[in-house]
Amino acid sequence: MTDGLTTDWLDRRARAHPNRLALSFADRAWTFAELDRAVAMAAGALRLHDVGSGSRVALLAGNSAGTVIAIHALLRLGAAIVPLNTRLTPAELAWQAADAEAALLLHDADHADAAAAVGDRPTVHFGENGPAERGAAPVAGGTIDLGRPQTIVYTSGTTGRPKGAVLTAGNWWWGAAGSALHLGHHRDDRWLAALPLFHVGGLAILVRSVIGGVPVSLQAGFDPERMARAFVADNISLVSVVPAMLPPLFEALAKMRRPHRLRLMLTGGSPATEPLLREALARGLPVAPTYGLTETASQVATLLPDDIPGHSGSSGTALPQTELRIERDGQIVPPGGEGDIVVRGPTVMRGYLGQAPLARDGWLHTGDIGRLDAGGYLTVLDRRGDLIVSGGENIYPAEVEAALLAMPGVAEAAVVSAPDARWGAIPVAFVVARPGASPTDEEIERVLATRLAGYKRPKRIEWVDRLPRTASGKVLRRALRERLQPPL
Amino acid sequence: MTDGLTTDWLDRRARAHPNRLALSFADRAWTFAELDRAVAMAAGALRLHDVGSGSRVALLAGNSAGTVIAIHALLRLGAAIVPLNTRLTPAELAWQAADAEAALLLHDADHADAAAAVGDRPTVHFGENGPAERGAAPVAGGTIDLGRPQTIVYTSGTTGRPKGAVLTAGNWWWGAAGSALHLGHHRDDRWLAALPLFHVGGLAILVRSVIGGVPVSLQAGFDPERMARAFVADNISLVSVVPAMLPPLFEALAKMRRPHRLRLMLTGGSPATEPLLREALARGLPVAPTYGLTETASQVATLLPDDIPGHSGSSGTALPQTELRIERDGQIVPPGGEGDIVVRGPTVMRGYLGQAPLARDGWLHTGDIGRLDAGGYLTVLDRRGDLIVSGGENIYPAEVEAALLAMPGVAEAAVVSAPDARWGAIPVAFVVARPGASPTDEEIERVLATRLAGYKRPKRIEWVDRLPRTASGKVLRRALRERLQPPL
Repeated sequence: MTDGLTTDWLDRRARAHPNRLALSFADRAWTFAELDRAVAMAAGALRLHDVGSGSRVALLAGNSAGTVIAIHALLRLGAAIVPLNTRLTPAELAWQAADAEAALLLHDADHADAAAAVGDRPTVHFGENGPAERGAAPVAGGTIDLGRPQTIVYTSGTTGRPKGAVLTAGNWWWGAAGSALHLGHHRDDRWLAALPLFHVGGLAILVRSVIGGVPVSLQAGFDPERMARAFVADNISLVSVVPAMLPPLFEALAKMRRPHRLRLMLTGGSPATEPLLREALARGLPVAPTYGLTETASQVATLLPDDIPGHSGSSGTALPQTELRIERDGQIVPPGGEGDIVVRGPTVMRGYLGQAPLARDGWLHTGDIGRLDAGGYLTVLDRRGDLIVSGGENIYPAEVEAALLAMPGVAEAAVVSAPDARWGAIPVAFVVARPGASPTDEEIERVLATRLAGYKRPKRIEWVDRLPRTASGKVLRRALRERLQPPL
Repeated sequence: MTDGLTTDWLDRRARAHPNRLALSFADRAWTFAELDRAVAMAAGALRLHDVGSGSRVALLAGNSAGTVIAIHALLRLGAAIVPLNTRLTPAELAWQAADAEAALLLHDADHADAAAAVGDRPTVHFGENGPAERGAAPVAGGTIDLGRPQTIVYTSGTTGRPKGAVLTAGNWWWGAAGSALHLGHHRDDRWLAALPLFHVGGLAILVRSVIGGVPVSLQAGFDPERMARAFVADNISLVSVVPAMLPPLFEALAKMRRPHRLRLMLTGGSPATEPLLREALARGLPVAPTYGLTETASQVATLLPDDIPGHSGSSGTALPQTELRIERDGQIVPPGGEGDIVVRGPTVMRGYLGQAPLARDGWLHTGDIGRLDAGGYLTVLDRRGDLIVSGGENIYPAEVEAALLAMPGVAEAAVVSAPDARWGAIPVAFVVARPGASPTDEEIERVLATRLAGYKRPKRIEWVDRLPRTASGKVLRRALRERLQPPL
């Protein structure tokens, strides 16, 4: 289902419609032919660094045209991209690059220091035109083997140790095709990409662009005024956002004089509240709540705006090629019942790096909790392993707890999600000091700053005498979360 | 690439959008939920005839809602459909049903006599609601195995003996997904299907409908006035036609008071002439020349209307997942050169029934002659084995010649294509009588009427003393065709 061969996606687009817009970033624009030429040169440069089919290359870069060119160049060479979250600490970056056995660390100018701090493998930097080397010969698009790993994206599990999800070119192909069937695909579509390209949600936009011939307006990050201006000026029809972006976008859009032409605003990362969705619809924004996973090359299910009224709180139905079901204790739960969300289909990753591959046509256990109604509409009730989703970033409590427990003064630690008006959720730590020790908040923060990306660090530390536990000794996270709810 | 599992397409649509229009025919309409219920009952009826996964069922029926229900019911049961061309003679029908080892011959009321004449296997008839049996229990949609044969469609080769192209559910899936990516996919799309459902072009519309959630307006056959009325009244956006339909459609559309909303009119079966395409565009019809094959579940390449000006005579670029190349003597011909058209990708059939399957990711040699330009645009120059395409039906000279040569009075025969204003082309036979024999045109026509469908029979017989041949004895068909060209 995810093997076979196909023609280089960008090459095909560049040949058939050379003069069609492919990419815009800041004040520059590239047609498909221009993007293809830039990618050919970048691929030639990377080849001089021995990047080829099967190479693993870590990528540490912000959103820029150079990053887009680097990504397409790596795809053209058949290399597996290991996209690194730019917010990670050097220690975290080094761990992921090492775990992935990346031969090379490719980085942009803004991340030269971070790349140097990783320190344990060769680095190659690139500028606004992507990787470049004197004497590089352009590499034309060839054949894509759909069965080969295209990306290795790190995601943390319940163990606290990040795992590299191996996504093949075929996983990405099916994601793009299924997305087009689910969301529609218009000749005049144009995507705005402001979410980081190191997450699957951003990468998926680049893949859809070259497979469907859709131009991408790339932005360096989230700036509500800039985004609102682009909606209007670039005739954007499709955009992905996280719920935290919506309120500032409401304000920015209210100031625009001309109407936007958005047809879908995919809203994912964390659940959007009903009042927020209602306000968006009332303001004429076609919000489409979306459930996605790193392990499925992003999109699993999306609720289209027309379906919101009858399906409050849902993330919609699965893409046409994707199957969803709810299980409890290995048994299928009938419609309406709660349980584990499991997914099957050709976007499901081959497996985690260094672990046994998933069974062919096996079900992926997401670890998330939800229910399906009789119509196949999914409602996500809780994220896996008490996952905290803060401003679109996933924080795994177990990873933060492991960092806390590594400190000599800490006896016990539990990290839970607290509601936050701006980020949706923030991590809060409950910590029990070791007898005789009395570490301060500042000491803890200073140590964590070297070990965990800023967004993962607890925004508040609650010192307690003991953690609430079940009879079998398991921490009662729910009890801790309840302590953090704002009073009714 | 074409295996794996997925959810029953119709079932999924019926659950997610039960009240959305699925099908209209004559003065009736079915929502997806209503179509699903009708299909569930029809599947239950067929089960009472022992139809199940892997069964092969021949289908002899015209375009009607009952036929659509029967087709979806067979898909739901996992049976392989052997769609029979209703224009075939009983002898031809019997041969195909026998070759396919069809356990059952399913037919509508209009084809009861023809089904009885086939005579050598059990028949089951159905009415306007599809197959029905007292005591049938509804069959709900389950899982579709993409690797299983979904249809066996007969197509003649150069040998003159029809061959059953085995198309899997995965072939059909990729055809629908690739078509959506190539043609676009709009929420308010609606297909008009007037071409026979026993050809892959008609079947493909049904598959796209349930995968993409697109309503189908079905018509019993081609009636230009009725088609033009439906374009307007049903807000049709997509339709497939053969070039011979265009002139009468021009007339019928000129009489309509309200504008149509067609966005694409796929024009295939045989090449449309440039003046015809220009006239269609001038009249506001978005014609899209298309190249398709039975062996690829229909669509291979389509030229979108915007691209017609720069690509005169072309059938456009391949669907995104399909690879095209031109070969001569096994070597790839560079852009601009003529040669054999070969196709690779996940819509390519598993193989012909009773022959070795195609190599995984092997190239399909279409037997057609064409060229690709540097942009990947295909121009079809000649159909395989001197194929004659007459009003959308394929006529294989070798098959007609074999029927002629089976007559005692015929020594040699060659059938070639003659241009025809109405049908695009018609078959003409050059015949050499056996020494001493002097068969008449009438005798030949009388015998052929029992052996060949009407559209295959030569419209004219030219008696000659000998056929022009190459030194090695091969008939020079080109020389014969040239005799038939109208004088300049």
